[in-house]
Amino acid sequence: MTPALDYAHSQAAHFRAQLHDFLRIPSVSADPDYTVEVKRAADWLFDHLKNMGLHVELIEMADRHPLIYAEWLGAGSDAKTVLIYGHYDVQPAIIEDGWDTPPFEPTEKEGFIYARGATDDKGQMFAHVKAVEAVLKSDGKLPCNIKLIFEGEEESGGRHLAHFIKTHGKRLNADVCVVSDGSMMTIDQPIISNALRGIMAMEVTVQGPTQDLHSGMYGGTVHNPLQALAEILAQLHHADGSVAVPGFYDDVLPLTPQERAEIAAVPWDISDWQQETGATHPWGENDFSLNERIGARPTLEINGMAGGFYGNGFKTVLPAKAIAKISCRLVANQDPQKIQEQVIAYIRQLAPATVTLEFKYHGTGQPVLVKTDIPVMQAAIQAYQRGWGAAPVFKREGGSIPVVADVQNTLGIPVILMGFGLNSDGLHGPNEHFSIEMFHKAIDTSIHFLYAVAEQ
Amino acid sequence: MTPALDYAHSQAAHFRAQLHDFLRIPSVSADPDYTVEVKRAADWLFDHLKNMGLHVELIEMADRHPLIYAEWLGAGSDAKTVLIYGHYDVQPAIIEDGWDTPPFEPTEKEGFIYARGATDDKGQMFAHVKAVEAVLKSDGKLPCNIKLIFEGEEESGGRHLAHFIKTHGKRLNADVCVVSDGSMMTIDQPIISNALRGIMAMEVTVQGPTQDLHSGMYGGTVHNPLQALAEILAQLHHADGSVAVPGFYDDVLPLTPQERAEIAAVPWDISDWQQETGATHPWGENDFSLNERIGARPTLEINGMAGGFYGNGFKTVLPAKAIAKISCRLVANQDPQKIQEQVIAYIRQLAPATVTLEFKYHGTGQPVLVKTDIPVMQAAIQAYQRGWGAAPVFKREGGSIPVVADVQNTLGIPVILMGFGLNSDGLHGPNEHFSIEMFHKAIDTSIHFLYAVAEQ
Repeated sequence: MTPALDYAHSQAAHFRAQLHDFLRIPSVSADPDYTVEVKRAADWLFDHLKNMGLHVELIEMADRHPLIYAEWLGAGSDAKTVLIYGHYDVQPAIIEDGWDTPPFEPTEKEGFIYARGATDDKGQMFAHVKAVEAVLKSDGKLPCNIKLIFEGEEESGGRHLAHFIKTHGKRLNADVCVVSDGSMMTIDQPIISNALRGIMAMEVTVQGPTQDLHSGMYGGTVHNPLQALAEILAQLHHADGSVAVPGFYDDVLPLTPQERAEIAAVPWDISDWQQETGATHPWGENDFSLNERIGARPTLEINGMAGGFYGNGFKTVLPAKAIAKISCRLVANQDPQKIQEQVIAYIRQLAPATVTLEFKYHGTGQPVLVKTDIPVMQAAIQAYQRGWGAAPVFKREGGSIPVVADVQNTLGIPVILMGFGLNSDGLHGPNEHFSIEMFHKAIDTSIHFLYAVAEQ
Repeated sequence: MTPALDYAHSQAAHFRAQLHDFLRIPSVSADPDYTVEVKRAADWLFDHLKNMGLHVELIEMADRHPLIYAEWLGAGSDAKTVLIYGHYDVQPAIIEDGWDTPPFEPTEKEGFIYARGATDDKGQMFAHVKAVEAVLKSDGKLPCNIKLIFEGEEESGGRHLAHFIKTHGKRLNADVCVVSDGSMMTIDQPIISNALRGIMAMEVTVQGPTQDLHSGMYGGTVHNPLQALAEILAQLHHADGSVAVPGFYDDVLPLTPQERAEIAAVPWDISDWQQETGATHPWGENDFSLNERIGARPTLEINGMAGGFYGNGFKTVLPAKAIAKISCRLVANQDPQKIQEQVIAYIRQLAPATVTLEFKYHGTGQPVLVKTDIPVMQAAIQAYQRGWGAAPVFKREGGSIPVVADVQNTLGIPVILMGFGLNSDGLHGPNEHFSIEMFHKAIDTSIHFLYAVAEQ
């Protein structure tokens, strides 16, 4: 693999110049005014991959931004196949948001590339593209088959890729899927995210009287829906921070000592937590570390609540109803649908006869857990050790990336979350940036990964 | 008093025509566009009272609507003095709100006068004015001294009258104050409201993390302020519906068997409650009847609550803060300031170390209780028996009328809430109306009251 690394190193400046061209296209998917630019980014990517010698397709999505699919299957049907996922669309950005340099005029400064999409996700996905090019150009072939799928609506909540996976999943068949869209904590310590939580989101409305009442004329005789809702919500957790919904933890897999050791190796502790949240006292399940609570334990959160009069001033209203938005983050082996039913049953059980309930559903998403002892994960570990000079640690993420569950659960392909961004890269905010050192280390690591997978 | 009653009956149509003139003036105090009209109503009232032979003053209030003060002190310093309170301003009204007839073009239909202010308060206060006129015109004098104070900002939350009472209270000195601004339940059963609850209104903000957090990335480690607030609010009441704030009931006077019997005589029960609230199951202090809970017991209500995202859709936010607006309705002998301190101390005690609290204050008002065995109340009972042919029952109101506490507590004058409106008169809504029969019965009753007070 030395020739590929040599090629990548010799082309470093050129690769970055190409990335700058890619970053210059304001492919803001959420804003209809930028539809032409999103298409321009798709075309740019199409041409770029084609010029690399890959078979490329631009797959039109009805009324939405196209998918770009590329492949090189020259390693033969006995060889391993690697699927690489990324997205070429970006979050909105205007200089007035607080950018020091124009967001769509990439600027290299003190070791970083500043531009919208630098880290999320153009910079990261481009590192994998360049790794493929480096191997292909230096060796004339790849050690394994390659499929690349890039979407253009990740930042606008689009789910066309999920639909494509359901309907054309066979085309994406592979031994492993590398997801480029992630992050690490520091540049020195590579991190592989090996779990994502699932989600169940819903809303409960507590209805009391048929209309808002004067709190003076009826207070003390009507069960105030805000109070009834508070009484219900206060019983959703035990005093020890655990969720009180019966059966909530039934399907949670207990952590093995090795898994706990893996999680404990993540370099993030209470002082990081305090700095990031501004809160003073942690809260939650005492028997689990902060990292375990975030990534390896399910939670129930109240995301919103409202009722009565909450503007400036005061109104002596006894409201007719009150609402709460509730979500659960779920871990591997939990079924979001089953959890939804359990939460609803428990809320119904808690609700007094003085009020009626109504539920609204805001969707579910499957959790993902990638075992760390499977061969492709071992290949990833090897790749980081070679590309970074350091063994990666495994982190269970608290959030959700729907595409990962789609790939792993629908296609049955193990996913490696090979994220090279840093949490501090300012993704979604002003002055988004990507470390130049990270970009080149990412290319090296991706090259190592292609060979390591082939060796398995 | 027969000549006065005869005069009032003979002038019935004329009195109503005068009331129509008064109602035609759109004296909407809350809307600056109507300032001229409010002044026109004040001038109309000034002239009207002057023509009746009273000494009248228009008292300008800085930047606000004037007070009208009138008096007839010809009964001499040994005679009793009656102070009559009313307000000549009205709520806003436009025909588009659902009025069947123009709100400022009084219309008599099926025994009712339809107009904004017909019942609240022009019609009611004018009945007392006409009673004074009937006695004065038919007898050439009054059996007691009379003071009338009419304000022009009752419907716009003005407190200039309170200031006037504090600074010029001596001018209003009297043996009894009749407040015209009230209501009864049915035309057949006269009701005297002999209690009003006081109020204490405040707001608590629960702050957790310094900014909104991603509920996936931090959920399960941060005490969600919405949850912390729900946990606090859920502990403000005991399961039996009583308020859990320590000391809350300390100063509440126990009800005597006679007082309970008085309250039980109010013709309003659970079927009325169900019809008015649309709720199915009553709630609150089981040891007290619905009427007792509303008028004779203090309460604590959550009037509003909000935090996180509560619009359409869903956001997985773990909010930095949550707020609740809380008010207490208080009964005689309770001190709003003391209750505020108790509520705050209790909330502070309930709050976990994971959050910080901030309080905002939205004002207090004193409770009022008028004993039913005092002479002026006996005079009122007599007046109703003569004017209505039925003995009044006593009702303790759940709401608050600040001026009543100002008069009774600041001036030390017992207040008789002689309301002739009906709850069903549509006050503050479209098609506000006042029963013609009620208007004339009110004049008769007010005439009887002047003589009954003089007899005491």
